[in-house]
Amino acid sequence: MPKRNISDISQLIDDDLKRFNELFKQSLKSKVALVDLITRYILKQKGKKVRPLLVLLASKISGGVTERSYRGAILVELLHTATLVHDDVVDNAETRRSFPSINAVWKNKVAVLMGDYLLAKGLMKAVDGSDYDFLKVITNTVKRMSEGELLQTSKTRKLDNDQETYFRIISDKTASLLSTCCEIGARASTNDESKIAAMREYGENLGIAFQIRDDILDYVGTSTLLGKPLGADIKEKKITLPLIYALKNSKADEAKKIIKNLKSGEKKIDVNLIIEFTKNNGGIEYAEKIAKEYSNKAIQNLSIFIESEYKSALQDLAVFVVERTK
Amino acid sequence: MPKRNISDISQLIDDDLKRFNELFKQSLKSKVALVDLITRYILKQKGKKVRPLLVLLASKISGGVTERSYRGAILVELLHTATLVHDDVVDNAETRRSFPSINAVWKNKVAVLMGDYLLAKGLMKAVDGSDYDFLKVITNTVKRMSEGELLQTSKTRKLDNDQETYFRIISDKTASLLSTCCEIGARASTNDESKIAAMREYGENLGIAFQIRDDILDYVGTSTLLGKPLGADIKEKKITLPLIYALKNSKADEAKKIIKNLKSGEKKIDVNLIIEFTKNNGGIEYAEKIAKEYSNKAIQNLSIFIESEYKSALQDLAVFVVERTK
Repeated sequence: MPKRNISDISQLIDDDLKRFNELFKQSLKSKVALVDLITRYILKQKGKKVRPLLVLLASKISGGVTERSYRGAILVELLHTATLVHDDVVDNAETRRSFPSINAVWKNKVAVLMGDYLLAKGLMKAVDGSDYDFLKVITNTVKRMSEGELLQTSKTRKLDNDQETYFRIISDKTASLLSTCCEIGARASTNDESKIAAMREYGENLGIAFQIRDDILDYVGTSTLLGKPLGADIKEKKITLPLIYALKNSKADEAKKIIKNLKSGEKKIDVNLIIEFTKNNGGIEYAEKIAKEYSNKAIQNLSIFIESEYKSALQDLAVFVVERTK
Repeated sequence: MPKRNISDISQLIDDDLKRFNELFKQSLKSKVALVDLITRYILKQKGKKVRPLLVLLASKISGGVTERSYRGAILVELLHTATLVHDDVVDNAETRRSFPSINAVWKNKVAVLMGDYLLAKGLMKAVDGSDYDFLKVITNTVKRMSEGELLQTSKTRKLDNDQETYFRIISDKTASLLSTCCEIGARASTNDESKIAAMREYGENLGIAFQIRDDILDYVGTSTLLGKPLGADIKEKKITLPLIYALKNSKADEAKKIIKNLKSGEKKIDVNLIIEFTKNNGGIEYAEKIAKEYSNKAIQNLSIFIESEYKSALQDLAVFVVERTK
């Protein structure tokens, strides 16, 4: 088990996170009643706030939290919330953190518009604060996230994925935002480009490690109240690192059988068969090894910063993301 | 009939529009094949390009077209395209300009992501060009457009609309973008705030006049190959200016009957009954009068500019939007 989980790490900057929550709530006010109703609904679903946590910790080790750190944290959380709202439309999700999803309660129409609204709000914040450096980073991130999802969609449809494309997808759809959080946090408190680059790379490596672990948990996790059921990705024909490795390192006829089963339609896909195949062909161990490598790289990226409790927290976070069991 | 239509007016700046089309095409390139496929699909559907036309004409009368004018035109066209793609999800539309809509061909998932991608691309262009003044205007516009649509959605659901709310909705959902086009066009070629304000107001008034005419055409228009069928808004229970006026200026029991019919469910809504009611109670004439007032205001806004063929074109455009029959 990792030394500390997200809650333990959040404790360390409890006051900063409280102030963030206050400012975040204020930033969501609208004169349209339906918008206010939905934002109150979103605020009730307290997420782990990993992205603001990253922004604030990155600021802490780069020189200290500033007003710009809070603006950056609000920007990334608004963007993240917008993408969650759109993702639920994208995935036809019925629930989000055990609440009915916005598209389930108010239909796709409202969910699409609400996502656009939240994104615009975040960008307006950055414009109003003249945080043009944040805008440069974040607009590129929005582009990468949608490109990554679209690439995954087309690969899923064709049932065709290789390790190189897999890394491109997870870098764009997941690591880009975590990297942006760390970069923005650093930019909020220093002009030192070497520190900014180090934090950007830390975030990228952390994100890749996080996503590989997420993909592993589809094979070995336990379904929990809040989590996805085991094999959810498999059912959606998402071919991720464990299976990519297993398919490449198994006998040709076995691999053929697996591909045939995946092509047989959602209801006929035999999740247990595919999980067993992946385990037996070393897919899990391989993916765990790679995730650990990225986690180590992330920890390496922190080496230019002086020792502090915040640096330790970021180190522990890199360990946590690859050792977590849900 | 108006003196000139959109095509006639576009002729005047044919070379500038050609250059815009070239640059717009270039700006849509992506390394993800699915994205390129969809953008090629979008580019095949040649729209009227009203928004780039407005940007370029606004630049022409404010001092001349600059490189920034083209960047502004690309920004607004990307944003407009993004909202069309999202609107089709929002409206569950099957076709767009007689082509199957993106959500119909590639499903909602791809349409939502593609809209996000196009929006991000537009904003990145503005960031890369350091057009921060454009960003300030455009992010506020994205927010207003989504708020306007959400306000309309909640009013439609409750079957409750009044003239004040109607104007708020059409100002936010339609006029805001046309106003932004004119403002951006002016900003691209002058620092004179009085000219910028005049163009912004011209665009706002033009947009309101345009939308009122659009709403009138739901009652008196003829269904065409490219247009919506007569009474499409009525079927969706969108209560617009002609009906708002008629409901307020008819006998109470008649109005009650109409509201009852609107509440009876989409299949039972009697479009002809409601159109007749609206006509008989002066709703069309009233809406036409108001649209003409906004058109005149728009023409008034141009008075500070010296006479030129571009100024005449913008005057004719203001006449066209309220006299068009489709």
